[in-house]
Amino acid sequence: MEDVQSGPAPVALPIDSVGIRGLEVPLVVKDRACGVQHTVAVVDIGVELPAAFRGTHMSRFVQALESRTEEFDLAALKRLLEDVKTRLQARRARISFRFPYFVRKAAPATGSLGTISYLCRLTGDLGEGTPCLLLEVAVPVMTVCPCSKAISREGAHSQRATVRLAARLRGFCWIEDFVEIAEASASSPVYSLLKREDEKFVTEDAFSRPTFVEDVARNVAGRMLKLQQVEGFRVEVESCESIHAHNAFARIEHRFSPVNS
Amino acid sequence: MEDVQSGPAPVALPIDSVGIRGLEVPLVVKDRACGVQHTVAVVDIGVELPAAFRGTHMSRFVQALESRTEEFDLAALKRLLEDVKTRLQARRARISFRFPYFVRKAAPATGSLGTISYLCRLTGDLGEGTPCLLLEVAVPVMTVCPCSKAISREGAHSQRATVRLAARLRGFCWIEDFVEIAEASASSPVYSLLKREDEKFVTEDAFSRPTFVEDVARNVAGRMLKLQQVEGFRVEVESCESIHAHNAFARIEHRFSPVNS
Amino acid sequence: MEDVQSGPAPVALPIDSVGIRGLEVPLVVKDRACGVQHTVAVVDIGVELPAAFRGTHMSRFVQALESRTEEFDLAALKRLLEDVKTRLQARRARISFRFPYFVRKAAPATGSLGTISYLCRLTGDLGEGTPCLLLEVAVPVMTVCPCSKAISREGAHSQRATVRLAARLRGFCWIEDFVEIAEASASSPVYSLLKREDEKFVTEDAFSRPTFVEDVARNVAGRMLKLQQVEGFRVEVESCESIHAHNAFARIEHRFSPVNS
Amino acid sequence: MEDVQSGPAPVALPIDSVGIRGLEVPLVVKDRACGVQHTVAVVDIGVELPAAFRGTHMSRFVQALESRTEEFDLAALKRLLEDVKTRLQARRARISFRFPYFVRKAAPATGSLGTISYLCRLTGDLGEGTPCLLLEVAVPVMTVCPCSKAISREGAHSQRATVRLAARLRGFCWIEDFVEIAEASASSPVYSLLKREDEKFVTEDAFSRPTFVEDVARNVAGRMLKLQQVEGFRVEVESCESIHAHNAFARIEHRFSPVNS
Repeated sequence: MEDVQSGPAPVALPIDSVGIRGLEVPLVVKDRACGVQHTVAVVDIGVELPAAFRGTHMSRFVQALESRTEEFDLAALKRLLEDVKTRLQARRARISFRFPYFVRKAAPATGSLGTISYLCRLTGDLGEGTPCLLLEVAVPVMTVCPCSKAISREGAHSQRATVRLAARLRGFCWIEDFVEIAEASASSPVYSLLKREDEKFVTEDAFSRPTFVEDVARNVAGRMLKLQQVEGFRVEVESCESIHAHNAFARIEHRFSPVNS
Repeated sequence: MEDVQSGPAPVALPIDSVGIRGLEVPLVVKDRACGVQHTVAVVDIGVELPAAFRGTHMSRFVQALESRTEEFDLAALKRLLEDVKTRLQARRARISFRFPYFVRKAAPATGSLGTISYLCRLTGDLGEGTPCLLLEVAVPVMTVCPCSKAISREGAHSQRATVRLAARLRGFCWIEDFVEIAEASASSPVYSLLKREDEKFVTEDAFSRPTFVEDVARNVAGRMLKLQQVEGFRVEVESCESIHAHNAFARIEHRFSPVNS
Repeated sequence: MEDVQSGPAPVALPIDSVGIRGLEVPLVVKDRACGVQHTVAVVDIGVELPAAFRGTHMSRFVQALESRTEEFDLAALKRLLEDVKTRLQARRARISFRFPYFVRKAAPATGSLGTISYLCRLTGDLGEGTPCLLLEVAVPVMTVCPCSKAISREGAHSQRATVRLAARLRGFCWIEDFVEIAEASASSPVYSLLKREDEKFVTEDAFSRPTFVEDVARNVAGRMLKLQQVEGFRVEVESCESIHAHNAFARIEHRFSPVNS
Repeated sequence: MEDVQSGPAPVALPIDSVGIRGLEVPLVVKDRACGVQHTVAVVDIGVELPAAFRGTHMSRFVQALESRTEEFDLAALKRLLEDVKTRLQARRARISFRFPYFVRKAAPATGSLGTISYLCRLTGDLGEGTPCLLLEVAVPVMTVCPCSKAISREGAHSQRATVRLAARLRGFCWIEDFVEIAEASASSPVYSLLKREDEKFVTEDAFSRPTFVEDVARNVAGRMLKLQQVEGFRVEVESCESIHAHNAFARIEHRFSPVNS
């Protein structure tokens, strides 16, 4: 049967990345509290294609994914990158897994336990040498507006905001490390389960620490700069302003270049 | 050229609705303040298909849309429904236009003008007799939590919420009528442009009228029940709780059955 | 501490449904091939609220979810509905779980195994008496256009389409039952892993069975009418027409009324 | 009234970009065929904030937008960037407008006219000197698989794909220029309105020019390299494979660095 893909390219240009997107798979990931946890991931995989070849072989990406051993961590991602490079005879491979990561969190007053999820993405990029690893975590938080609080006779507008942290790793980090940094940097963490005593605590705590999106971004950046395992990072805070229909955002980057998936 | 669609259906069942979805077109709609306004709409059109015919003729939907005269209102929608029924020789036609509607709104203290948009959908359903008309408007508002306010030493969590109003019309209503009902029913309207004096006003005003999603839904329903032009309605309020990563919602229906698009 | 929610409602109207939306949780569901499988779900829960009470107690929804025993099936959903009704002292409760369901599928020629996911939603509604159960499954399929094939010298446009099946259950059904019905009703199933021999098979098989969206909807409906466990259903087919930027759809309903979440 | 934003930042780090996102406004843009056209845009605006200041003044972004004169083109974008820099006393400003752009297109056989929309984004970034301008256009096209065609006895799978072109401009380009490049690079353009004769033409034309995502990306890149007004570009092609539930993609970049919004 003819292998059309291996034929010559009509336009002889190299392709930076070619592959598949949006494949959903079950995933078992490392969990700081419980050893492992079960989740699901959406996977993107791509490879470089030299100018000489017309097409890549898309089914091999899926075969590489299917032949994974179950547990997923940085080491498993590196092995998968090597495997994809070999199967596709490629000089460079990039893989990303996007998945919700679950944490059981205790409410601040009653200690009631509630499960909350954080959307994460782990991306690996392997050319020659050691792979480049990027961890992204989205952490919902609460912000109380310092301006609204200072100028109003009573109250202050507050809202849900999202801290999106992306970090190039030089060593191992727990997703929980990033979650804790984001939550400590805003007016308050958010929770799935809050009893009345907890709601009182969260409200008063948040109002004692009003933060602009600028404050949250800087607080996160200040903490990230101290993490040995992080080579460079980008933090973006976006708040669903409760007095507007549009959002506010602030972004700080430090020695950061994005990885295309 | 063979007309495959007009051939017999292999399985002789009538089809409730068949048509096209997601066609984007420019739209000129009636505007209470300015006469008309320009916006864009995503259009869905469908017709009933009897058991005897294999397929409908999809291109005729687009032709009907293309032959519209520019200005769009209830009368134009009715004419379009008739036109689609005729072109498709159908017993029943349904059309919906989903579009942002723009309003210039004055800030409450300084009167500064800012443009804000409300996502609307106007649906018409025409079988025998008079068409059934459904107007849907999504209105972003602000809610301050009454419980958080009552139990906390200071402050109260607030958030952006969306009021989604759907009403079966028996007469003409302005989109602005629904917007005003939704905004009067929450802790505060939201605005695009707020100077510092306005932000103080909005904060204090919102904190003087704390509302649960249940309160907002009931306030809207109470006002809708008095509108002569409305035959039945559904109101749904969904708030992006600032202390949680999930949302809260409340829904009230009154003599309401949804129209499928 | 004051219980503001239990106070009187300023506007004394009953609320059809009030609750939480968008809470993400890990889920273990029954699997026809493997016994059980791990996935994640987004959960919505709501209860009726009488005119006399101002608010519901949102934290109890989360507590009910947290106290679930691990495995999820129709029986577990019924127990959860009872539990929510009791905790909230409500006359009626509705719960829905939306989750990807994974199936390992063999390619048609080589038998290569690839994992594919189907987005499902299981909704329960419990007032007095027995609960009402609704299963929804979205199945991606391939359609080849019969008209394009009949009139063209060569080829025919094909595209990915989605069959969305919603059925009110009176007995147990496997998700796989619905998947098989949808796949048998289109021009071809889709697969995650196809080697060259498989791609040849799928292409030729699909071109031997060209289908309009109308054909697929009728084929599905004809098969659903024979299922004893199904009381009523709605099937909707939407195809991403490869010759257009908009979609085509067809819908058939049989003894079906939607459940609001 | 206190100006909290102008106070000192608790953590003295500069912020790369701070501003607003998701503000929807009506927009009048240049149109090659008709002079101007009315559409709607979603706007993001951000400025750099030095380490010394705690916060930016968000309302000034909206004021700048509100004081625009109606017609929008590259010159108007440059004036707006200057205006934002001045109002915010910022060293650097970035603004992006995302909007559907409408084109009336003649069907290839009958010449029937149908309106089709292309999602565009125009971004300007102004520090010292001349602004950096980025135009992005998403063009839906049709691809017929060369491998499927070569190995199958009959037919070949085809699908809708999207060409996403992003180009750094050194001179004026029409959106239509990018649309034409994308459409000429795939198996066939897509249309809103196709009569039977047109459907025959499109099918046969597409089957005479089968293309992989790799081919489309290279064809586009080859054409973009010849455009004098383009300094650098990125082309990404993503196809909704009709034999899979996941997508295939290919990307080529040439002297391209993304602009963050």
